[in-house]
Amino acid sequence: MADNTILIKNAVILDPNTDYDEKKDLLINNDLISEISDNISDENVDKVIDATGKILLPGFINTHTHLSMTLFRGLADDLALDEWLNDNIWPMEANLNGNYCYIGALLGAVELIKSGTTTFSDMYFYMEDVAKAVEESGIRAVLSYGMIDFGDEEKRKAEIEKNMALFKNCHDAADGRIKVFFGPHSPYTASEELLREVRKLADENDMKIHIHVSETQKEINDVSSEKGLRPFEYLDSIGFLGPDVLCAHCVWLNDNEIDIIKKNDVKISHNPCSNMKLASGIAPVSKLLENDICVSIGTDGASSNNNLDLIEELKTASLLQKVSTLDPKVLTSDEAIAIGTINGAKALGLEDEIGSIEVGKKADLILIDTNNANMIPDSSNLSSNIIYSANGSNVDTTICNGQILMENKKLTTLDEQEIYDKARKAIEELKALL
Amino acid sequence: MADNTILIKNAVILDPNTDYDEKKDLLINNDLISEISDNISDENVDKVIDATGKILLPGFINTHTHLSMTLFRGLADDLALDEWLNDNIWPMEANLNGNYCYIGALLGAVELIKSGTTTFSDMYFYMEDVAKAVEESGIRAVLSYGMIDFGDEEKRKAEIEKNMALFKNCHDAADGRIKVFFGPHSPYTASEELLREVRKLADENDMKIHIHVSETQKEINDVSSEKGLRPFEYLDSIGFLGPDVLCAHCVWLNDNEIDIIKKNDVKISHNPCSNMKLASGIAPVSKLLENDICVSIGTDGASSNNNLDLIEELKTASLLQKVSTLDPKVLTSDEAIAIGTINGAKALGLEDEIGSIEVGKKADLILIDTNNANMIPDSSNLSSNIIYSANGSNVDTTICNGQILMENKKLTTLDEQEIYDKARKAIEELKALL
Ligand SMILES: [Zn+2]
Ligand SMILES: [Zn+2]
Repeated sequence: MADNTILIKNAVILDPNTDYDEKKDLLINNDLISEISDNISDENVDKVIDATGKILLPGFINTHTHLSMTLFRGLADDLALDEWLNDNIWPMEANLNGNYCYIGALLGAVELIKSGTTTFSDMYFYMEDVAKAVEESGIRAVLSYGMIDFGDEEKRKAEIEKNMALFKNCHDAADGRIKVFFGPHSPYTASEELLREVRKLADENDMKIHIHVSETQKEINDVSSEKGLRPFEYLDSIGFLGPDVLCAHCVWLNDNEIDIIKKNDVKISHNPCSNMKLASGIAPVSKLLENDICVSIGTDGASSNNNLDLIEELKTASLLQKVSTLDPKVLTSDEAIAIGTINGAKALGLEDEIGSIEVGKKADLILIDTNNANMIPDSSNLSSNIIYSANGSNVDTTICNGQILMENKKLTTLDEQEIYDKARKAIEELKALL
Repeated sequence: MADNTILIKNAVILDPNTDYDEKKDLLINNDLISEISDNISDENVDKVIDATGKILLPGFINTHTHLSMTLFRGLADDLALDEWLNDNIWPMEANLNGNYCYIGALLGAVELIKSGTTTFSDMYFYMEDVAKAVEESGIRAVLSYGMIDFGDEEKRKAEIEKNMALFKNCHDAADGRIKVFFGPHSPYTASEELLREVRKLADENDMKIHIHVSETQKEINDVSSEKGLRPFEYLDSIGFLGPDVLCAHCVWLNDNEIDIIKKNDVKISHNPCSNMKLASGIAPVSKLLENDICVSIGTDGASSNNNLDLIEELKTASLLQKVSTLDPKVLTSDEAIAIGTINGAKALGLEDEIGSIEVGKKADLILIDTNNANMIPDSSNLSSNIIYSANGSNVDTTICNGQILMENKKLTTLDEQEIYDKARKAIEELKALL
């Protein structure tokens, strides 16, 4: 097959790893960034994109979501986590099937692509169907199956088998755009035996792990009274933690737990909108950053957010740290850009492939058009303009693995209206099944 | 002049005061809503808008901003209020003139109209030039001149004269779309003499008052050490407070001050993004609401936000209350809609004219198109879908005083590109003057 080349001309580049002071041209060859320089000829190039008036960034990386739950957007709000889960989400989930999860994932993929996210890290059910949506949409994903055993040995075996089957079927699928992690749900829904088995299998198969930890005060109390240890102390005591473990939420941490996280090089996915909306609490992100802990960002499911807009999430993260520490200098817009890009790549162990704009990395790129009222004047500070002023609707073009998924706000791989109609039908059917 | 009529067909109405359970038609006659019923004939109607698939709401009301400061968006970020003001904003403001304030106000008006705000309440300088932007844009405004005397008697007289001149020149101008308030800046920049004089003149002229109160801990400390009283206690002691006083921020309040606010029926403008970004603190909004105090919403200036998107502001308000009280049930999406509409009208003393969708009220209306990835599925809960899922970019149509200011995302009264170019030039000139 002949090479496919895309040339992006006159790009103002905002990248957490590099400090380009002048406009650059960037050449994409198949899935890779092959050249970045002052002036690249458009001869023999398959496609030219003029980036004048736009900012070029690495695609955003959403390290914790449940994409199929986009179907449950707005289903139940203004409720405590328990009531929200037990009375609303779980009864709905009982009737899910692969097709519903596929439709929900497609709907989520449309929203991600439109708002500039090129990689998402997911934990849910029917993950082969989510993989199908990833394959078709052209987006990049880390998929894990959400394992819950509540101490039941038979359930445990079945759950682990499902996650291993996902690994065998989908790891490195979709031209390498899909990776598979283990997804033990949390220390309060997965037994110690499950966590120990996952740790062993992860080492044997070179798999990574995605888990919820320390989301609510109730979780701290429950784990503490059962195990005599706080969640991170408990996970450390059973040898579960390591640099390959991605922990979502991490709201309630004492200093010893922050030391444990640092010592084990555990990766964090911060989910501020979900933590605020469910009143879970405020994660000590600026303290984690001070300790050089890798903090990335996630939206959690759209059902507790209620959108997948990572720019909004990063603004919320920054503002929440400022007000909760009463220090306006913490979590700057430059740090927020890094949290949304290169830190996400590190959190997923993909920093050699994605998360920054460098020759040899995958061409996961977005263009943000600043010629809109909410971003003008646009001459002062690129990162401030994106984090504090913009939202996902300012994203103009999304490229993943060298493929254009959206250009001038038009999707290329997915039929928006068809997906919207299917999603509306799906949720009506699910409501009728209750 | 013949009547001008606009018929909105098949509208799903979301209004804080009414509970329309079926789609309605709504007729606008000149500046007023003249009929709301099941089926209104389109015969002899000048213009028909089909609202199928859209939600009809009262236009949002932004009760505290400094519209011309939109020019300073992104100028300085991640700084403490003092440093931000003294080293960045005030030096810029020293070189402002009427033309710059006019351009900044036009830029702000574009952003407001595009994001569904039909009324804003402003406090700044060169307010006659802001009034000109209001006149041309078709938006509704409450304007006040920001008076600062720091105890200087001559300055005081001049400042009051300027605010009174604004009242005489602009109150009820632009077909009644402009009202003028007094704008003493704050209890730490306006002297006791100025505040007493304002109170007296407000009573004599039937004018209302817009002021910043209790934004930062430093203000509490400074006022307390100078006056021996906390800000609201001090303002109460000099007879300044009343139902015609709109106070922005109100972050640091003790129980006695909440009683004072309630007793005097003082109106509040809550500005969560600005308070978070400048690390001022978290206003006790759910406590104020529990006390039946009128809380409205404002963005503050774009320079400390950094946008004027009231839907984003309302989401932030709701989420911040939930997490700061650790109660997910406070500040629901229904309450947020009321805070953004009818409470704003009450805060400005305009509740007989605007803030809800009722026959006889001004036709200040917006349509939100839910057929976008971030709002689908769209069948569950209208207010949740708007507050938690949407942002200003989902607004499709904006009508103020019966005039269409934006239809299908196209502005009708203002030339966006021309204003963007002028704003870019203005900030470059202002930077060069430093
Ligand atoms: Zn989650
Ligand atoms: Zn202000």
